[in-house]
Amino acid sequence: MTSFAEPLREVSRDHCVAMDGADKLAHLREQFVLPQGVIYLDGNSLGMLPRATAARVQEVMEKEWGQDLIRSWNNAGWMDLPHRVGDKIARLVGAGAGELVVADSTSVNLFKALSAALSVAQQDSPTRRVILSERSNFPTDLYIAESLARERGLRLVMVDRPEDLVTHLDADVALLMLTHVNYRTGRMHDMAVLTRAAHDVGALALWDLAHSAGAVPVDLKGCDADFAVGCGYKYLNGGPGAPAFVWAHPRHVERFWQPLSGWIGHAAPFEFSPHYAPAPGITRFLCGTPPILSMAALECGVDTVLAAQHLGGMDALREKSLALTDLFAQLVAERCEGQSLTLTSPTAHLLRGSQVCLTHPSGAYAIMQALIARGVIGDFRAPDVLRFGFTPLTVRFVDVWDAVEHLRDVLHSGQWQEPRFAQRAAVT
Amino acid sequence: MTSFAEPLREVSRDHCVAMDGADKLAHLREQFVLPQGVIYLDGNSLGMLPRATAARVQEVMEKEWGQDLIRSWNNAGWMDLPHRVGDKIARLVGAGAGELVVADSTSVNLFKALSAALSVAQQDSPTRRVILSERSNFPTDLYIAESLARERGLRLVMVDRPEDLVTHLDADVALLMLTHVNYRTGRMHDMAVLTRAAHDVGALALWDLAHSAGAVPVDLKGCDADFAVGCGYKYLNGGPGAPAFVWAHPRHVERFWQPLSGWIGHAAPFEFSPHYAPAPGITRFLCGTPPILSMAALECGVDTVLAAQHLGGMDALREKSLALTDLFAQLVAERCEGQSLTLTSPTAHLLRGSQVCLTHPSGAYAIMQALIARGVIGDFRAPDVLRFGFTPLTVRFVDVWDAVEHLRDVLHSGQWQEPRFAQRAAVT
Repeated sequence: MTSFAEPLREVSRDHCVAMDGADKLAHLREQFVLPQGVIYLDGNSLGMLPRATAARVQEVMEKEWGQDLIRSWNNAGWMDLPHRVGDKIARLVGAGAGELVVADSTSVNLFKALSAALSVAQQDSPTRRVILSERSNFPTDLYIAESLARERGLRLVMVDRPEDLVTHLDADVALLMLTHVNYRTGRMHDMAVLTRAAHDVGALALWDLAHSAGAVPVDLKGCDADFAVGCGYKYLNGGPGAPAFVWAHPRHVERFWQPLSGWIGHAAPFEFSPHYAPAPGITRFLCGTPPILSMAALECGVDTVLAAQHLGGMDALREKSLALTDLFAQLVAERCEGQSLTLTSPTAHLLRGSQVCLTHPSGAYAIMQALIARGVIGDFRAPDVLRFGFTPLTVRFVDVWDAVEHLRDVLHSGQWQEPRFAQRAAVT
Repeated sequence: MTSFAEPLREVSRDHCVAMDGADKLAHLREQFVLPQGVIYLDGNSLGMLPRATAARVQEVMEKEWGQDLIRSWNNAGWMDLPHRVGDKIARLVGAGAGELVVADSTSVNLFKALSAALSVAQQDSPTRRVILSERSNFPTDLYIAESLARERGLRLVMVDRPEDLVTHLDADVALLMLTHVNYRTGRMHDMAVLTRAAHDVGALALWDLAHSAGAVPVDLKGCDADFAVGCGYKYLNGGPGAPAFVWAHPRHVERFWQPLSGWIGHAAPFEFSPHYAPAPGITRFLCGTPPILSMAALECGVDTVLAAQHLGGMDALREKSLALTDLFAQLVAERCEGQSLTLTSPTAHLLRGSQVCLTHPSGAYAIMQALIARGVIGDFRAPDVLRFGFTPLTVRFVDVWDAVEHLRDVLHSGQWQEPRFAQRAAVT
């Protein structure tokens, strides 16, 4: 295993090929559809298509929906999908069976979890009026918190540097709301330490696992976290806009009534009572009818990550992820020297998620467009970030080599300055 | 066209076959996968699978996701899907282009629309504290209203009889919240009259179109409605748990900030600003990343309804729907006489949606199970309702005849009393 402190000597393409040959996880890549001529370094935005997905979704459409119609709610287990897929995700994030459900979008789940967390926090300490987060948190998290803060007369406090979080934790804080791995920088928080720091001042901790679930080991129960949400379409490979997930620690889950009190979260949905009675446990976080096609696709995606379980699971995936990101950073440093690129992701393994971000003062957008035109797909984040995600299930060491060679060519040749790469368009 | 007041004389199976032969909409049924041996009278719970859907979703998975990956957010128009499909639905419910979006579930959209409506109502008249609805409204609507009422210190008032709505409309009412066609009885409200009655006392009107969109003509703008939500998986044939839709009248749409303020509803989502600024118009009702597989399926479903446009559109579908429900009620009255069935759906066309409900004092569940075992699929609603939906796109007159003959057999033979039909299970 390499780090920036101990770089590999004499790395070559052959060396990378040899690393792939020695990689016990290498065959997991065969679970995915692999487009010709593409080096995909954007699995942190949209995971690749698992080979199993198209056939499974086809079966859901043609057999379960087309032939069996409404009967599939019972006979095909549709009603149970939010729990069944939730239990699988729970195994990846250190939650117990029956504690986590799949539903809605990350944003909507954050609204539920944040509402519930604030209700719990304010029930325990009515004078606490602060939601503490980071200005660099993913915008949806801040917007939802801003909305709830406004609705409930609370204050959203955003710090600029991660190290300022602890100094802002005081008796006014009801909730610490953080994204575990930062979407722009790839910086990872220490979930155990920050959760404990929040608890030490009597606050709760809510974690957004959008860039963690399936990417790095997460231990919600081990860290004693209070609430969590996460995304289905990044490292869980659930497909564009896949449903998201939500978890509440069992000590909190029955203490509140989350405001998106839809019929699927009712204690007895088929009694059609005019009054709401929340279902026991995490089921009360369900709201409307579950989206079955999307849930079926998500289950296939989660299965691709669970396929690593007998090979060391998330720890093994993490080891490969760090090796990939180390290698990328080292090769960029060696082979793109003097090209105005700055590495902004943390060098320390403990602080790094499964992505590497570079900045370029004037050309980040155009450089990424030139790379994409060559089939090397990462993404651009305004104003100056080139973001590269390294999904350990699908990215090979030789892909890292080849991606850096393309980057080097784009920079050395000045190709990125061609007018065709200058035009901005919306990219997620 | 027949009604209960003027029954057809001497109806026979041949007569029904002849009606199908004369039906100019008959071929629209060929748009759907039609399982062998099934008479499907539950399109009001889950619409049938359009033939186009499986191929389209396969294309989205294999080409747009599998091959083109993240690039499809721009290149395949994924970002625009909530608007593109929304514009198609708008044509079916009397809304303008750009006024309606597809997103989330009906329950979640109701939360947004109800929040927004209450904000508008209370901004105009801060002393109004009542949400007026019906006890028989679909439970999710009542639960979401109950939740928001609790959060905002309002009161949810539920009347027991539709005729009591007008007498409860007074200066305390902020919002009249109704489902246009009742899910249990099939009774339809007069949207124009009730919206006007609400406006006359200074209240707003919010309509749930779950059992209306694609089933009966709806004219939101013509009725001067204020807000609306609706379902994608019933008469719009979008598939199990398909995304829902939400509409706000242009006079209200920019007056508020709905609380599910996710990044896709931001004015500039790709600037990743830490502060929320709602997008212009109905876009601010979007929240999280749109679910693309489900949206693609929904678009195919909506297209099956739009295929009737050149044949008279919703008016022609409505005419057929009334003929089907008239025929069903007449045949049940004639051929199941003395079998303790009571028709609970309204006899007047103006008051009837696209379904017919019967009650049976002791056997509703078992009778429906016996019918389902014969391939006649309707649904049961506790405690005593047999619910039959008549999707005019897919149901033939001969299906009505055959369904009633099965019902007659089940009742006359006493088959429904067999123990195998007594066991209750969850059915949506």
